[in-house]
Amino acid sequence: MASADKFEDHCWKDVVPESDMRIYAPYARDTAVGPNPALLAIDLYNLVYEGGPNPPSEIAPQYPSSCGIHAHRAVEPTRRLIAAARRAGLPIFFCTQDIRSNARPAGAVSTKRRGRVMKPENYAIYHEFPVRDTDVMIFKQRASAFQGTPIVSHLNVLGVQSLIVCGEATSGCVRASVVDAYSSGFNVAVVEECTFDQTELTHKVNLFDMHHKYADVMALAEVEAHLDGLAQRRAPAKAS
Amino acid sequence: MASADKFEDHCWKDVVPESDMRIYAPYARDTAVGPNPALLAIDLYNLVYEGGPNPPSEIAPQYPSSCGIHAHRAVEPTRRLIAAARRAGLPIFFCTQDIRSNARPAGAVSTKRRGRVMKPENYAIYHEFPVRDTDVMIFKQRASAFQGTPIVSHLNVLGVQSLIVCGEATSGCVRASVVDAYSSGFNVAVVEECTFDQTELTHKVNLFDMHHKYADVMALAEVEAHLDGLAQRRAPAKAS
Amino acid sequence: MASADKFEDHCWKDVVPESDMRIYAPYARDTAVGPNPALLAIDLYNLVYEGGPNPPSEIAPQYPSSCGIHAHRAVEPTRRLIAAARRAGLPIFFCTQDIRSNARPAGAVSTKRRGRVMKPENYAIYHEFPVRDTDVMIFKQRASAFQGTPIVSHLNVLGVQSLIVCGEATSGCVRASVVDAYSSGFNVAVVEECTFDQTELTHKVNLFDMHHKYADVMALAEVEAHLDGLAQRRAPAKAS
Amino acid sequence: MASADKFEDHCWKDVVPESDMRIYAPYARDTAVGPNPALLAIDLYNLVYEGGPNPPSEIAPQYPSSCGIHAHRAVEPTRRLIAAARRAGLPIFFCTQDIRSNARPAGAVSTKRRGRVMKPENYAIYHEFPVRDTDVMIFKQRASAFQGTPIVSHLNVLGVQSLIVCGEATSGCVRASVVDAYSSGFNVAVVEECTFDQTELTHKVNLFDMHHKYADVMALAEVEAHLDGLAQRRAPAKAS
Repeated sequence: MASADKFEDHCWKDVVPESDMRIYAPYARDTAVGPNPALLAIDLYNLVYEGGPNPPSEIAPQYPSSCGIHAHRAVEPTRRLIAAARRAGLPIFFCTQDIRSNARPAGAVSTKRRGRVMKPENYAIYHEFPVRDTDVMIFKQRASAFQGTPIVSHLNVLGVQSLIVCGEATSGCVRASVVDAYSSGFNVAVVEECTFDQTELTHKVNLFDMHHKYADVMALAEVEAHLDGLAQRRAPAKAS
Repeated sequence: MASADKFEDHCWKDVVPESDMRIYAPYARDTAVGPNPALLAIDLYNLVYEGGPNPPSEIAPQYPSSCGIHAHRAVEPTRRLIAAARRAGLPIFFCTQDIRSNARPAGAVSTKRRGRVMKPENYAIYHEFPVRDTDVMIFKQRASAFQGTPIVSHLNVLGVQSLIVCGEATSGCVRASVVDAYSSGFNVAVVEECTFDQTELTHKVNLFDMHHKYADVMALAEVEAHLDGLAQRRAPAKAS
Repeated sequence: MASADKFEDHCWKDVVPESDMRIYAPYARDTAVGPNPALLAIDLYNLVYEGGPNPPSEIAPQYPSSCGIHAHRAVEPTRRLIAAARRAGLPIFFCTQDIRSNARPAGAVSTKRRGRVMKPENYAIYHEFPVRDTDVMIFKQRASAFQGTPIVSHLNVLGVQSLIVCGEATSGCVRASVVDAYSSGFNVAVVEECTFDQTELTHKVNLFDMHHKYADVMALAEVEAHLDGLAQRRAPAKAS
Repeated sequence: MASADKFEDHCWKDVVPESDMRIYAPYARDTAVGPNPALLAIDLYNLVYEGGPNPPSEIAPQYPSSCGIHAHRAVEPTRRLIAAARRAGLPIFFCTQDIRSNARPAGAVSTKRRGRVMKPENYAIYHEFPVRDTDVMIFKQRASAFQGTPIVSHLNVLGVQSLIVCGEATSGCVRASVVDAYSSGFNVAVVEECTFDQTELTHKVNLFDMHHKYADVMALAEVEAHLDGLAQRRAPAKAS
C-alpha cells in the first residue's frame, strides 16, 4: 500500500519527461493489493535465464530470448514473493508456452519473432521456482495468459478478485496479461522487483503505462507486508 | 445442400409434436455447407466406445460415459466424413479433455456429473480415427470446444468461415460448441449420422434446437457430395 | 436447497423415459444457490408477451416470438423473484437485444429465424419488471448474455460467484447463457417457474439438460427462502 | 509493403538505444497489409480534439483527454486513409465508449484515470470522420475494442482476416486492441501517421513494441497504395 503522493516513486522517473508527468497527474491514487488475491507468475521458463547474469545485448546473438542480468536479479525477490503467497494461502498460477504436438496451426504464436524453437525443456519453469501439485499451470499460445486459455473460469471458480503479477517480459506477456486481467474485472498489482524484460526502456515505459492505466505497480516489501498480514489473520483461523 | 421444403426431414420428426412444428415454421430455409469450411470432430475419445455396441442404458452402470450402440453406429459414417474432408484439403480439428497435471483447479470441469476419472487413455482419440500431424487437437476443460481454448484464433489464422461438426454428445459438447461457433460468426453444418448421444430424446431435441436456431443439420451424403466437389475443383488447381 | 433424493422432482418427469433416467443417475446431487449471487433476468422484453395469455401455437402466425400463456404465467413468480433479490441486495442484471443503429453487420444475429424486425419498442423490458438505475442492462447480439458482452467483467468487478437465472427462451437464450455462465466458473441456479419457452417439449428437455450438466434447477420457493435468509443476515449488518 | 531492411525506419529511432535494437534484430521482416482487410478506427471521438492543435501538456489542465496537436495533425491523413478504405470497399469499424445508462456497474471502466465524465457528446465521433449507415460502431467499456464486444463475431461474419488500424491512444486503446487482434488470429497493420497519443515517448515506445511483436507499423502512403490496388482490381470486377 502506497499513498497517492508517492505514486510516481518508481523506476521510470529517469525516462519519462516532466511535462509528460503533468499530463498523467489525474491518474495519481493510493495503491493496494485488492481483495481475494491470487499470484500469477508469468513465463518464468528456462529460456529466459540462459546465458547467465549478463547484459541481454551481449548474449542476444546466442540466447535471443534471455533477459540475462534482469532475469537473474529478479530470482531472489521472486522466490520471496512466491514464499509469501504460499504462507498466505493464495492460489498460485504459473503460465508458460503450450508446446504439445498438434496444439496449433502454423502462425498461432505469441509474437512475430522469427526462428523460435518450441522445445519442451525451454519452456519448463526454472528450477528456482518449484511448482507444487496444488498450483495451476496455464498453457498459452499467445502473449496474454488470458487469451485462448481457461484462466478466467479458474479465477471465478476460486473466487479470486485480484491478481499479484510477476514475471516477464514487461513489454510482452506481462503487459498483455495485465491489460486483460484489468479489463476482465480483476484488480492487478504488479511487483516491480519481480518483473523484467530484455531492455530497460521498454521495461520502464511499459511499467509506467500499466501503473497509470490498469494496475498498481508496487514494491516487493509492500506486497510482502500485505501477504504476511493475510497469513497472520489466517493462522488463528486455522488454529481455532 | 437441401431445399427449404425438406427442412424438417430429420430424426426428430417422431418426437416433436405437429403444433410445435408450426411455431418453428419461420426458421425453414435452404441448408448448405458455408464457405471456407473446416471439420470439427468433437470428443471422439475412447471412453465413449466402451462396452461395445450395446444400449447405453444397459452398460451405463459399468461404463457411465459410453454412448454404446449410438457411438459404434457412427464409426463408419464418421470415417467417411473425415476421409472426404481430407480429400478436400480441409483443416481438421479434433477436441478432447485436457488431462495434463496442474491444468486446472478442482471444480473447473465439463459438467456436474460425479465420479469422473481423468485418466489419459480414456481421453485419447479412438483408434478408428487416426490423428495426423497436420490436424489440430483442442484440449478443453469445459463442454464447448470454444470455451477457454484458442480455437477461434486458429480458425482466423486459417481463414476458416464455416465448420462441419460431428461427434458427441449432441446434448452436451456438440450443442455447446455449435452455439459458440454460430455466435462467434461461423456457419455451422452438423452431420446427422455422425453425431450421437447416450439417449435418443436428448439427441433428437438438441438436433432440433440446433437446426432451427444455430446450424444446418445435414445428411452425410449431402456433405460428402459438397466436399467431393471441393476436392475436384482443388485437384486441377494443384495439377496445373 | 433440495436434497439429492428429490433431484428429479421437476417438470420433465412426463417426457424423459425411465431408461434415460438411469443413465443420468450419476448426476444426482444436492442443489443450492451458490455464494455471492446475482440475478440474471434474460430477455423479458415486450415481444415475448404479445398476443396475451394464449397458446403460442395459436398466436404464432401473428406474434412469432410470443411465448403467450407460458410468458404470462411466469409474470407473477418473476415479480416475486426480483423482489426477493432486491430485498437481499443482489446485483440485478437484465439483458435484451442490442438494437442501436450501426451496431452490427448483416448476419450477426441471435438465431437463424427469418423475418425478425429490430424495433426498439419490441426489445424494451416488459412493464411488469421495472428496471432501476442501479440495475445493469446487458445489450447482446447473440443468444447468450455472455457472447460479445462485458458481463463477465461486470460480475468480476462486483465479486459475484453465482447466478440466479430466469427468463426465456429455455431452449435458446437461457440455455446458451447458462452453459456460458457455468463454463465461465459461476454457479448457476435456474428458477423453474420463472423460465419459459414457446413449446413444452423443448422447455422440458432443455431444463433437464441444464439441471444435469450445468445448473441447479430450483423451485421459486426454495430460492425465495434462500434470498430471505440473505436479506435477514444483511439487515442487522446494516443496522449496526 | 516495406522490405525487411527498412524495418526500423520509423519514429522510434530517436528514443530506442542502439544496443536495444540489436536485441530486436530477429523481428525484422517484410511488412504488408494482409488478406481480406477491414479498417478499424479507434476512439476518434470529440474529447480527443478539445482545446485545438496545442501541446497536450499545456491544455491538459482544462482538457485532460485531449491529444491536442497530435490529434489535429492526424486528421488529414486519417481522412485520406478512410477515403482509400471506402474506395476499396473495405468494411469499416469505428469504436467509442459505451455511454448508455445502465450499461455497467461502477468500476467497469477503460483505465484508472479519475474524474472522467461520460457525457454522450464527448464520445461522438469527430465531425471530420462522418460515419455511414454501412459502417459498424463498436461500443466498448474497456481499452480494447475486442474486450467484452462482438467485434470478433462481426469480423468472422464478414470474412475479414486482417485489420488496418488507426486512432488513439497509441499507449492505451490502440495497443490493447492491436494485441487482441493479433492474438485472435488477425493480421494487423498500424498506420503511423494516423495513430497518436498525448505524449511522444509513450507513443513511440508503444509503436515500437507493437511493430516488433504483434503488427506491421506502416506508412500511410504504403497502405493507400495497397488499397488503391484493391480498388482497381475491384472496379473491373464490378463492371463485368
